Amino acid sequence: MAEPSGRPDHAFPEAQRTGVYRAIHERRDVRAQFLPDPIPPEVLARLLEAAHHAPSVGFMQPWDFLLIDSREVRERVHRIFQRENARAAECHTEARGMLYRRLKLEGILESPLNLCITCDRSRGGEHVLGRHSIVETDLFSTCLAVQNLWLAARAEGIGVGWVSIIDPAELADVLGLPTSVYPLAYLCLGYVSDFLDQPELARAGWRQRLPLAERVHGNGWKQPLDSPTLSTALETLEPRR
Amino acid sequence: MAEPSGRPDHAFPEAQRTGVYRAIHERRDVRAQFLPDPIPPEVLARLLEAAHHAPSVGFMQPWDFLLIDSREVRERVHRIFQRENARAAECHTEARGMLYRRLKLEGILESPLNLCITCDRSRGGEHVLGRHSIVETDLFSTCLAVQNLWLAARAEGIGVGWVSIIDPAELADVLGLPTSVYPLAYLCLGYVSDFLDQPELARAGWRQRLPLAERVHGNGWKQPLDSPTLSTALETLEPRR
Repeated sequence: MAEPSGRPDHAFPEAQRTGVYRAIHERRDVRAQFLPDPIPPEVLARLLEAAHHAPSVGFMQPWDFLLIDSREVRERVHRIFQRENARAAECHTEARGMLYRRLKLEGILESPLNLCITCDRSRGGEHVLGRHSIVETDLFSTCLAVQNLWLAARAEGIGVGWVSIIDPAELADVLGLPTSVYPLAYLCLGYVSDFLDQPELARAGWRQRLPLAERVHGNGWKQPLDSPTLSTALETLEPRR
Repeated sequence: MAEPSGRPDHAFPEAQRTGVYRAIHERRDVRAQFLPDPIPPEVLARLLEAAHHAPSVGFMQPWDFLLIDSREVRERVHRIFQRENARAAECHTEARGMLYRRLKLEGILESPLNLCITCDRSRGGEHVLGRHSIVETDLFSTCLAVQNLWLAARAEGIGVGWVSIIDPAELADVLGLPTSVYPLAYLCLGYVSDFLDQPELARAGWRQRLPLAERVHGNGWKQPLDSPTLSTALETLEPRR
C-alpha cells in the first residue's frame, strides 16, 4: 500500500495484519463442534489477558472472569437455558418454529469449559470518568473484553459460543454473584472439530448477511457518501462469509 | 506448543497469532495523536467490513455506519461534548478535578474522520432469535462490531478514540437518526504520530490496570481456581501495558 509522504507507518507487517483479519472473518459462534480436550492453562491465561486488555470507560475494567468446569454447575445453567429456550421457541410458529426447534443454540455441556464474563456496575465508584452521560458504558466495555477473547481464541484454534438465551437473575443466583455484578456473557469454550465456513444461522437459512454498502451513510442518516471510490470499494469487497 | 494427540489444529501460524495479540495489546483509545492524513477508501472499506463481521444475536446485524467528515457536523458534535464534559467535570473536585480538566478526552475536530456506529433496535422484527431473555443483546452485538473495527484499525496503523462523554439524544438529533436507531459509539479515526505505550489514563495517573489474577474466579464468585498451574500462569504473565 502506498504511504502518503512523511506519515509514520504504524501498520503491522502483512502476516500479522492477515492474522487480525483472519480472526475477524473466521471467528464463529460455536455450538455444535466442541471437542472435550481441555484448554492448557498457559493458553487460557493468554485468552483472559486478551480480554483484560480491552478498552474500558474511565479505565474502570469492570469485568471478572468465572471459569466453570464443574459438571454440576453447568447442568444447573443448562436447565436455565432449557426453560428460557422453551419460552423463546413459542414466539416462532409454523415453518419458522420448526426450523427454530432444529437449531442447536448452545454447547454448555459439550464444551470442556464455560466462562462467565461479568460487569461490576459499582467498580470505580460513583463518578467514573466518561460514564457520566451514558451509564451503560460499563456494560459496553465488558462487551469489548468479550470480543478480544473471542478473537484471540480463534487465533489459538479455540471455539467460543455466547449463550444469550438465559435468565441473568437465575444465572447470577447459581454463580453467587453480588448484587452489583451483572453476568454479561455466558460463553462456552473449547477446541473444535472444525470452524464452519459461514455463520450457523446463515447456513441453516434463518437469516443472511446484509449488504454492507447499504449500511454505510454519509454525514447523517441516509446521506450519500462523499467518496464514490469508497462506494465502489464497499460494493466490490470480495465475498466473505 | 505441543498438541494433544489427534485433535485437529485450527490455530493460526505464529506470525498471524502474534498479529492478533499485538492488535489487542497495542490498541489505544486515541485522543491527542491524530494526524490530518485522510484514510484511503480501500482501507476504510476493510475496517467497515471488519465491523460488519462481528457476531450478532440472531444474526440481526443491527449496526449502521455514519461517516462524518463534514467540519460543520463535527463542530456541532463537539459542542455537545463540551456541554456534557463541563457537567461531568463538576463531579470531580480538588486535585482530582484539576487532573480531570487537564485530560484530553476526545479528538473530534483533530481527527480527519468521525464514525458513528448505531444500533437499530427494531432490526429483524419483534422476535429476534436469542434476544428473548436479554433485550440489550442488540447493543452488545454492536459493541462487538466496534471492537472488530478498533483492532483492525490498529493493524492498519490507524488510531481510534471512543467519545463517551456525549448526550445520545442530542447526537441522534444532529445525525437525523430515526427513533429506533441508537447512536452507540461515536468514534474518532485517523493515522497517528504514535501509539502510546500504555493507556492515557494510566499514564496520567488517573487509574491503573488491575491485577488480572484477582479478577479470575472458579466455579462461582470468589471460588478458588481448580488449577494451580493456571493461577501461576496468571500471576506470572509478562507485564504488559
